[in-house]
Amino acid sequence: MTLEIRPVHGIGDVTAGDDLAELITRAAPWLADGDVLVVTSKIVSKAEGRLVEVPADGPEREEARQRVLAGETRRVVARRGNTTIVQTHHGFVMAAAGIDASNVDKTHLVLLPADPDASARALRAGFAARGLTVAVIVSDTMGRAWRNGLTDVALGAAGIDALLDHRGQFDPYGNELSLTQMAVVDELSAAAELVKGKTDRVPVAVVRGYSYNGGDSDGPGVSVLIRDAESDMFGLGTTEAHARGLREAAALADVMPLTPTDPAVVESVVAGFAQVSLTAENVRLTPVSHSPGDLIRLGAEAHRLRAALAAENIPTTIAVDDDGATVTFGAPA
Amino acid sequence: MTLEIRPVHGIGDVTAGDDLAELITRAAPWLADGDVLVVTSKIVSKAEGRLVEVPADGPEREEARQRVLAGETRRVVARRGNTTIVQTHHGFVMAAAGIDASNVDKTHLVLLPADPDASARALRAGFAARGLTVAVIVSDTMGRAWRNGLTDVALGAAGIDALLDHRGQFDPYGNELSLTQMAVVDELSAAAELVKGKTDRVPVAVVRGYSYNGGDSDGPGVSVLIRDAESDMFGLGTTEAHARGLREAAALADVMPLTPTDPAVVESVVAGFAQVSLTAENVRLTPVSHSPGDLIRLGAEAHRLRAALAAENIPTTIAVDDDGATVTFGAPA
Repeated sequence: MTLEIRPVHGIGDVTAGDDLAELITRAAPWLADGDVLVVTSKIVSKAEGRLVEVPADGPEREEARQRVLAGETRRVVARRGNTTIVQTHHGFVMAAAGIDASNVDKTHLVLLPADPDASARALRAGFAARGLTVAVIVSDTMGRAWRNGLTDVALGAAGIDALLDHRGQFDPYGNELSLTQMAVVDELSAAAELVKGKTDRVPVAVVRGYSYNGGDSDGPGVSVLIRDAESDMFGLGTTEAHARGLREAAALADVMPLTPTDPAVVESVVAGFAQVSLTAENVRLTPVSHSPGDLIRLGAEAHRLRAALAAENIPTTIAVDDDGATVTFGAPA
Repeated sequence: MTLEIRPVHGIGDVTAGDDLAELITRAAPWLADGDVLVVTSKIVSKAEGRLVEVPADGPEREEARQRVLAGETRRVVARRGNTTIVQTHHGFVMAAAGIDASNVDKTHLVLLPADPDASARALRAGFAARGLTVAVIVSDTMGRAWRNGLTDVALGAAGIDALLDHRGQFDPYGNELSLTQMAVVDELSAAAELVKGKTDRVPVAVVRGYSYNGGDSDGPGVSVLIRDAESDMFGLGTTEAHARGLREAAALADVMPLTPTDPAVVESVVAGFAQVSLTAENVRLTPVSHSPGDLIRLGAEAHRLRAALAAENIPTTIAVDDDGATVTFGAPA
C-alpha cells in the first residue's frame, strides 16, 4: 500500500451557506472513489455560519471572547496565565474550546462546527450525490499534554472507522496484540496537515490509496475517540486537581461513609503522628495536657490525620470528647 | 506539494548488531535524496541490543517486568489498575515506559533506544555513507490524554526540524499566527504508521515529496518536543495530584513563608467559616465555649481554614493561645 496525499488548491474564500462538496469537487475534479478527504474544520464552520461577531479590539473584544468561550465550555480542565483548556460540549479537550481568530476578519471569531460528525456525514452525502464514494474527515489543530508543538487531529468523520482494531491479532512470535487500537482518523488528519499549511489557502487534502474499514456506512464517527472524564487519568489539570485535594481536606465531613481498609496503609500513615494509639478501626488522639492551647492543637492534629488518610483514599469519621478525639476508619478488607 | 508514503517490505528479522542502514537500503534500493525515513523504534532497539531477558511466564515474569519498568522510569506520572504512566529518563510520558513485549520472543522485553535522537543521527550517517541525504525519524506508538486510540509519534529525529514554526506569519486577513508551532515529525510518524501496520513486517516507511527544514545538519532532534514537568499543565495524573493536595493539607507547617494576597479571595474563603473575625492580615478563631470538646473542634476548624486558603494558593501561619487561634496570611498585594 502506497499512499498519496494531495493538497486541494483553489477553493477560495468560504462563506455561510456555501456548498462545500460543490466547491471541493470543482477544485479537485480528479477526486475518485475510495479517497479520504480531510477538510479543515475552519471552512466547515464558515460554511455552516458558525461565526460570532466581536469588537475588533480593546477590552470589549476580550470580554466578548470570554463570553463566547464560556458558551462553548462544558467544563474547565486547566488554566494557566491566559491559557484555558476546556472540555467542549462535544467532549473535546482543547485550548480556548477551539475558538479561532485566525483566517477570519477581525470582527469575527470562528467556533467549531456544532456537530463535526454530522458535518462529515453531510459532506459525504454531498459527494455521494455527485457519484463519489469517499470518506470525509473534519480536522483541526490541537495541542496535547507532555509534548510541545501541535498536530492535526479529527473532530468528525464519516465513511471510515475512527479506530483500527488490532486486538486479537498475533505478531510473528505468537504474542497477542492486546492493547492496540490505532486512531487512524487522527493519523490521517496529521498526514493531511503536512500538505495543507496554516493560512487557509489549502483547507482540504486528499489521501489516496489508503484501504480503510467502515466505508459501507457513515459509521459512528469521531465520537468513539472521546474519552469520558471519569475514565481519563488526566481529566483535570495538575494544579486544579491539587487544589481540589486541598479543598476536600478543608471540607471533610465529621461523618463519612467508611470503606474497607488496608491495615498496612493505615499503620504507615499513623506512624507520622504523635500522641496516638491505633486499634483495628480507629485512632485515639490524646492531648499533651488539658490546657486550651494543647486541646486546640490536638484538634488541628486530628484534622491533619484525617487529611493524610483521605490522601490514601481512606474516609474517616471524627468524634470529640472531653479527653481527646477518636478518628474512625473502615474495618480491614 | 504531493506526498507519497511508501512501505519498505522485506527487512526481515533484526537482531543485535545489525546494520539498519544496510538492511534498509537493500530492501528499498529506490531511496532518494530528500526522502524522510520513518523507522519503528522496535527495530532500532533490537539492532542496538536494547533487550532484557525475562521469564516467559508466571509471577516471576511480572516481577521482572516491574523491575525493568522501575529502571526505565524517571518518575511515575499516573497509575490506575495495571496501567502505569511514567516519564522515562528521555523525558517521554508513556505507558509502561514504552517497554514492549510484542514482536519479540516470550523471554525478552524490548526497551526504547537509550537515546533515540542519537540513533536517528547514526542511521542518517549510515545513509550518508551510502551517498544518500535523507532525514531519519525514529517512531513509536503512544497513547494520549483525553482521546481513545493510539497514534505514532517521533522519539528521535535527525536532518529535519521537529517543529515547523508559523509564528510571525500572517494569514490572508492580516492576523498574525501567534501560537502555531506544528510538530511535523509527529505528523510524519503518524502518516508513516498508516502504511506500516503492527506486526513488525513493515517497520519502515518512506515519505517522499515533503519539503522540510533543517536538512543541512542533524539538528536537535525530538528533544525540543519534550515539555518539562513544571511547564506542563498535566504533569501529574488527576488522582495523584488530588492525593498530593490532601497530603499537603495534612502536612501544612505551623509557620510558612507568606505571599501577597488578594483580599477578595480571602474574604470569599473565610465566608465559609463560623466564629471567625477577619482583619487585613489574619483570621481570629474563637471557641464556642472553653469546654475541651469545643477547643478541640476549634483546632480542627483552624486547620480546615488553612487548607481552604492553601487551595487558593494562600500560605498561612497559625498561632494558638488559651483563647483561640490566629491564622495569618500575607498582606494585600
